[in-house]
Amino acid sequence: MGGSLENGVAAATAALRVDKEVDYAQYFCTYAFLYHQKEMLSDRVRMDAYFHSIFSNTHHFLGKTVLDVGTGSGILAIWSAKAGARKVYAVEATKMSEHARALVRANNLETVVEVIEGSMEDVSLPEKVDVIISEWMGYFLLRESMFDSVICARDRWLKPTGVMYPSHARMWVAPIRSGLGDQKKNDYEGSMDDWHSFMDETKTYYGVDMSVLTKPFSEEQKKYYLQTSLWNNLHPHQVIGTAAIVKEIDCLTATVADILEVRSTFSSLITVENTRLCGFGGWFDVHFRGRREDPAAKEIELTTAPSIENSTHWGQQVFLLHPPVRVSVEDALDVSFSMNRSKENHRLMEVEFGCDIKQCSGKLLPSFRNKFYLE
Amino acid sequence: MGGSLENGVAAATAALRVDKEVDYAQYFCTYAFLYHQKEMLSDRVRMDAYFHSIFSNTHHFLGKTVLDVGTGSGILAIWSAKAGARKVYAVEATKMSEHARALVRANNLETVVEVIEGSMEDVSLPEKVDVIISEWMGYFLLRESMFDSVICARDRWLKPTGVMYPSHARMWVAPIRSGLGDQKKNDYEGSMDDWHSFMDETKTYYGVDMSVLTKPFSEEQKKYYLQTSLWNNLHPHQVIGTAAIVKEIDCLTATVADILEVRSTFSSLITVENTRLCGFGGWFDVHFRGRREDPAAKEIELTTAPSIENSTHWGQQVFLLHPPVRVSVEDALDVSFSMNRSKENHRLMEVEFGCDIKQCSGKLLPSFRNKFYLE
Repeated sequence: MGGSLENGVAAATAALRVDKEVDYAQYFCTYAFLYHQKEMLSDRVRMDAYFHSIFSNTHHFLGKTVLDVGTGSGILAIWSAKAGARKVYAVEATKMSEHARALVRANNLETVVEVIEGSMEDVSLPEKVDVIISEWMGYFLLRESMFDSVICARDRWLKPTGVMYPSHARMWVAPIRSGLGDQKKNDYEGSMDDWHSFMDETKTYYGVDMSVLTKPFSEEQKKYYLQTSLWNNLHPHQVIGTAAIVKEIDCLTATVADILEVRSTFSSLITVENTRLCGFGGWFDVHFRGRREDPAAKEIELTTAPSIENSTHWGQQVFLLHPPVRVSVEDALDVSFSMNRSKENHRLMEVEFGCDIKQCSGKLLPSFRNKFYLE
Repeated sequence: MGGSLENGVAAATAALRVDKEVDYAQYFCTYAFLYHQKEMLSDRVRMDAYFHSIFSNTHHFLGKTVLDVGTGSGILAIWSAKAGARKVYAVEATKMSEHARALVRANNLETVVEVIEGSMEDVSLPEKVDVIISEWMGYFLLRESMFDSVICARDRWLKPTGVMYPSHARMWVAPIRSGLGDQKKNDYEGSMDDWHSFMDETKTYYGVDMSVLTKPFSEEQKKYYLQTSLWNNLHPHQVIGTAAIVKEIDCLTATVADILEVRSTFSSLITVENTRLCGFGGWFDVHFRGRREDPAAKEIELTTAPSIENSTHWGQQVFLLHPPVRVSVEDALDVSFSMNRSKENHRLMEVEFGCDIKQCSGKLLPSFRNKFYLE
């Protein structure tokens, strides 16, 4: 959401400091609801990945200390305890912590799992830990910027020999086709038609000329309909070219500076005949590999790539082009991608795609550059 | 939204102090969008009422000073200037003020209308005013609690001889029938069925017993589906008994204490044969009467009562009973109604209905008392 804030908060946001009360009002509130927790707990792909990462690698947990960052309902902390951990600290910033505590007790694990209500930046633990486990990934990996809290936890509380669960994360982008672009274009045009009727009526009945607001209204509507990325569950057939990695994160060493801005240039070859490049799809995967000196016995992958049977609640993020571009097999895209945090709200992202297209005939199409908002 | 806040904000909210940054994040943000302003400007009943209240009563505006509290797009300030005001101060807390300023200039009124960005509690005006005009009414009148800002404006800036536009406001309640109750009941039961499947699966596949969360989950879902009032556009035929006034406000004299809590007991006679009391509908009206010493030449009414042709964007608020109660013509309801601000967020309301039903045969049905949340 745009709009300037009063001086104190403006300065704070500019410094990307988490203004706790605003952050709570906007971000944490959703996680305080059991319904939302249940949605995540019902995501079988997500649950399976974490479940297997723990129970196929119990050597990382047996007799060890664990920190669960953002425990929510407490599920990862409970599994860690069942995998044999000596002690689990389960930190949760919202009142969901009370439910986590009840769940731990109901599953007879209260001697092992200690639920702590508070933010990771503030809480104090009695000791450093062998494992930090967290399900921190937002849409397209970095939306919500929860990884900041994981980094903070790691820097404060992970032993020098400790492991991160997950250990690695990657962001992927691919060219896609989609009917959503047409829909949104129609919605935008309908909204502008409606605006013009509204202006006529307001002039006729109420004597006020609204035309000076046409430009800002159209920019606001454009941003809403055409420039905001969408959640979508892409079918694999909608991916029309080779996918590329735009970011790789080693969770053991990444800093906040590393993830403040994502920049990447990559090539993509169109793999479908006579189709439309309607935009780009973005997703992520994470891996549970342990660390070089203490690797996983079994490496587990959690991917949110387009899939028929293994889709997740994350879906993919879709960035639509207006208008779409006709492309065909072996056309080559040179793409520049960037993503950084919105100045107004560090948990939202601004994304830019630049694209040059060389048809397989050798002909160069006009290049374009589009800005998007990931809300 | 529920959930406890960190100590500082908890104390603040308990004192009902407006924590500006949280308030901005939750409340003001919507009003910063032109789309939202347009929705209100497209409400013909609303627009007609204010338009006629001003232009049928130009004696209140000609050569006078006016304050528009929460000017939004600036429309009321612009009309006040066109009605001959000497000076209009148009106060707006969001960046919408920039659009208001542009609209004023585009309509050649910048010498008369001064747009001031800020909250009514903070801004300073160079003089007191003859008229305070404001469109401050929320769903069921008091949702959003914007009237607090109008009272503040009046106490600080209205001349002893000044008038309020509108001058009076009333809240109404009537017994209704509605299919929404059945819908919401089904949604709630579906949600609980789903919860039980989810619990079975989580136990089977992941070895975690979620049953301790069934009660809090069911309470959360009950609150969401069954105890939260709904926006609805009631058809007049859905009103099945006599309507009653539960609150009357004189905008010239009301204090914040007067509106912190609304309490009323009233009687209602059922006027429809063999029907279902599915709940209660709430709405409001406002009047533009000027003041006793300086009355309106023409009194204008803006009502949001159920209507076929004159519905407004406010609709009505609907409070549904589960289960509904069979009633018939001449059955008598004794209703107690109360509404007060939520401790967690002063812009949300908690509502309670108590009801005794005496059938026209003389038989007394079991009384009930239901709590609702107006979000």
